[in-house]
Amino acid sequence: MVYSREDLIEAVSSQMPAKRWEHTKGVMETAVILANRFGADPQKADLAAILHDVAKYWPVEKLREVLEEQGESSELLQYDKQLWHAEVGAIVAERDYGVTDTEVLDAIRYHTSGRVGMSLLDKVVCLADYVEPGRDFPGVNNIRELANHSLEEALAAGFDSTIGHLLSRRQIIFPLTVLARNDLIKQLEANS
Amino acid sequence: MVYSREDLIEAVSSQMPAKRWEHTKGVMETAVILANRFGADPQKADLAAILHDVAKYWPVEKLREVLEEQGESSELLQYDKQLWHAEVGAIVAERDYGVTDTEVLDAIRYHTSGRVGMSLLDKVVCLADYVEPGRDFPGVNNIRELANHSLEEALAAGFDSTIGHLLSRRQIIFPLTVLARNDLIKQLEANS
Repeated sequence: MVYSREDLIEAVSSQMPAKRWEHTKGVMETAVILANRFGADPQKADLAAILHDVAKYWPVEKLREVLEEQGESSELLQYDKQLWHAEVGAIVAERDYGVTDTEVLDAIRYHTSGRVGMSLLDKVVCLADYVEPGRDFPGVNNIRELANHSLEEALAAGFDSTIGHLLSRRQIIFPLTVLARNDLIKQLEANS
Repeated sequence: MVYSREDLIEAVSSQMPAKRWEHTKGVMETAVILANRFGADPQKADLAAILHDVAKYWPVEKLREVLEEQGESSELLQYDKQLWHAEVGAIVAERDYGVTDTEVLDAIRYHTSGRVGMSLLDKVVCLADYVEPGRDFPGVNNIRELANHSLEEALAAGFDSTIGHLLSRRQIIFPLTVLARNDLIKQLEANS
């Protein structure tokens, strides 16, 4: 079965509470704006945004099952469950919804953690997830401001806010996010 | 040649400015206190402390040369030069000063970065480096306070302060320090 955009929206929205679907709509809208602003493909940004949280409300055991089927994802299982839905989302997008575009799948896969060498689309979807209109956390307006002119500045500030939050709450920091943040800072330094 | 403690002190202190030698004396004194408090070997703590900054004031090119001779250290070369002296210190302690005790060498090697699975001696020397009497940075008194009763609490707070400082200054964060800090938090959770 090939899913139309409307089919996907129907399938994804039925797997989460209405409030989370509002968040997803915010990410869709913001990802398209950012894609147009920074030269990414708006249709790919829209598709990744629709699917990015598809597995967010799946039971932990179902997430674990999908990850355990993938040998290479076992490292993720040692980290916070909040990180699992992104990897599972990418797997499900391909397996259940027929998405074959690896750029879109990667943007889903890395939307929470980031990675070293983020693509333009990765950055757009990840930043949209930080700044969509429904988000409210300390510093979000600064990140929105930065997003008006620099994708990398804004995303680095987003990762800084995540890492700082985890530091202050004495929670485990996912090392890939630190590597992603270091990589953005190197990109900014190289371009300054 | 076998070096006596006095020979080592003479050799190390001659390789740094007087002010840095004052810091080393503070680390020696503090490391022995912490070793006695938490059950590490005070003689090993003293030896590691004497040597920990032996290469701190070496020219960058000399540090690079020593690291490049070691194939496995090439990752470190991608990170801040401030991190190089610890690895070089361990190499030099063994090569030039005849230290063979791997516990002591590791405590020198990881005194700045930390590592996953830090030994008791690693923790003592690393924490002594944070809290010796000459240190003055925001939060140091809180870390000193924690060091009265928990090595892991105090060291985790030390790493948090380093990571927070690097975050706020938009500097590259060495991923091993994040892993070391995560590992301490897991140890604290497991023991709580």
